[in-house]
Amino acid sequence: MPTTTRVWTLASRPEGEPTPENFEMVDREVRDPSGGEVLLRTLYLSVDPYMRGRMRKPHPYAEPWDLGDPAKADLAGEVVASAHDDYEAGDVVTARADWAEYNVVDGDDLTPVAPDLPVSASLSVVGMPARTAYFGMLDVADPDPGDTVVVSGAAGAVGTVAGQLARLAGARVVGTAGSPEKIEYITEELGYDAGINYRETDDYDAAIEDACPDGVDVYFDNVGGELTDAVWRHLNDFGVVAVCGQIAHYNMAETPTGPRYTDGLFANRARIEGLLVRDWAHRFDEANERLAALVASGEIRYRESVVEGFENAPDAFVGLFAGENVGKQLVKVADRADPV
Amino acid sequence: MPTTTRVWTLASRPEGEPTPENFEMVDREVRDPSGGEVLLRTLYLSVDPYMRGRMRKPHPYAEPWDLGDPAKADLAGEVVASAHDDYEAGDVVTARADWAEYNVVDGDDLTPVAPDLPVSASLSVVGMPARTAYFGMLDVADPDPGDTVVVSGAAGAVGTVAGQLARLAGARVVGTAGSPEKIEYITEELGYDAGINYRETDDYDAAIEDACPDGVDVYFDNVGGELTDAVWRHLNDFGVVAVCGQIAHYNMAETPTGPRYTDGLFANRARIEGLLVRDWAHRFDEANERLAALVASGEIRYRESVVEGFENAPDAFVGLFAGENVGKQLVKVADRADPV
Repeated sequence: MPTTTRVWTLASRPEGEPTPENFEMVDREVRDPSGGEVLLRTLYLSVDPYMRGRMRKPHPYAEPWDLGDPAKADLAGEVVASAHDDYEAGDVVTARADWAEYNVVDGDDLTPVAPDLPVSASLSVVGMPARTAYFGMLDVADPDPGDTVVVSGAAGAVGTVAGQLARLAGARVVGTAGSPEKIEYITEELGYDAGINYRETDDYDAAIEDACPDGVDVYFDNVGGELTDAVWRHLNDFGVVAVCGQIAHYNMAETPTGPRYTDGLFANRARIEGLLVRDWAHRFDEANERLAALVASGEIRYRESVVEGFENAPDAFVGLFAGENVGKQLVKVADRADPV
Repeated sequence: MPTTTRVWTLASRPEGEPTPENFEMVDREVRDPSGGEVLLRTLYLSVDPYMRGRMRKPHPYAEPWDLGDPAKADLAGEVVASAHDDYEAGDVVTARADWAEYNVVDGDDLTPVAPDLPVSASLSVVGMPARTAYFGMLDVADPDPGDTVVVSGAAGAVGTVAGQLARLAGARVVGTAGSPEKIEYITEELGYDAGINYRETDDYDAAIEDACPDGVDVYFDNVGGELTDAVWRHLNDFGVVAVCGQIAHYNMAETPTGPRYTDGLFANRARIEGLLVRDWAHRFDEANERLAALVASGEIRYRESVVEGFENAPDAFVGLFAGENVGKQLVKVADRADPV
């Protein structure tokens, strides 16, 4: 049993881009679990763009982290000791907990990892980002066969799943991403019909017209900014925009300005709708099972970008905003213990 | 039987605000109706903000008027001569036709005016603007009892009906309008709970906070611009914006810019949806009957701003953009013929 754990805390609030210096590593005592608690050893830590919001105060939709307090994340961990009837040492679960190597958590808040898949998959293609894609694409956007669906951030943790779900629904899928490698990945491996490298595009409208000759029926948006302005201009009648994330805005101190597209909205009878995955908590099991089956059958493929070492968690997080990851960004903290 | 009619045609496309000089009056021969047609004498002509769009080319959602061609409008007219089995001289109907004193129209496209109400009501509180309010408020926005509903352009043809329908649905209703008289009208006569005179407000956010202490659940938007930016900032979780019109934009040559509110959209899980009333054409009878009943019972009140004289139609149209009308703006062209 460990007596102390390393913990990443919030040292300062970023102005603009976050940096590793916004985080500070401290040591913390590890107490024994009691009364339904479980002691978890972190195997993988999830870093996600939404966490940028929790570094500032106020946060628009979740509690901000306080200065000096631990950063929090979804993680996959192995039970080291259990005071909960449902878990015993060696079980592997996911939890929302501190950025720490060891956490004592309430056993009632744990979710067993997906069977028959690598542990990390329960944070990626069967994890929160994939569930976000599942409900955002299938419930909010709900494309019809033959629709043209544009996914921004198409090579990211949410976008890779969103685009593949649209393809499985029979849509023509166009992805935007920020490197030739990512465009090749989504078109060659994930079955996207076309890709737009926004970093090599100086005329977004022309690029969208070229990639979407029949206009845009669904836009699954993880990015925002000028790219989003341009996609909105190409919405078809009754087009739908599922606003899932806006990573281009997260490091801005003020709300950016852009064209007010409201004239087009009513001319097109378009719908723009924001989503947070937590609103579907009552259906997470459904999503997890369906996604796991699609992964097992090969109908959904996935990749993970894994940074090794707990000490590198801030770097992995900061790298999200430089677009360093393909698929889900994870931090590998430890291997599973050898079976006794 | 008249042999000629006066007709208003489009003389030039406006830059910015339209002026009466954009229209030219010409004379046109009146032919006999044949093969299902009807000759109509115009009683009331409807002028509506959306027509501003038809003066330019391209128009976002309807055919633009060509230079030299007649302007077109909804009108109420009396049948002078009929070659259609369903109509005879003296019948009063509504039609979409030219800005003319006499029109020959297809009898299949006519709608009898509402019985037991003044003829003009079939262009106003039982007409296109009222149907827009009906479907926009009840189908798109669909407020719950206790919701806070903001209606912009609250004293206009659409807004007056939208706000009253929200009140009848049990909502708390706040209207924005551009004069003290309009604010008094909506709060004293129409039962709005509060009003904001946007022309006397230099801090929209403070005014909205004051009028909507519990935030905004539904925004029925006829206006756009900075007012709309501010209302969006006060949307509650799962708030809905029904984008019905954007009169503040219609005279702009370029799409105006404003804050990109997309971060707030997904934090709030808000929905912004555009609407055009023509999509509910299959349910117009339902709306007409329901609205007529609410008017007859006194549950919906209405006012009309009536300009006398066909020659003044362009002035009445131009006045819409100065906010001169309370309720529906109409042009009275002629009285019904005396019964023979």
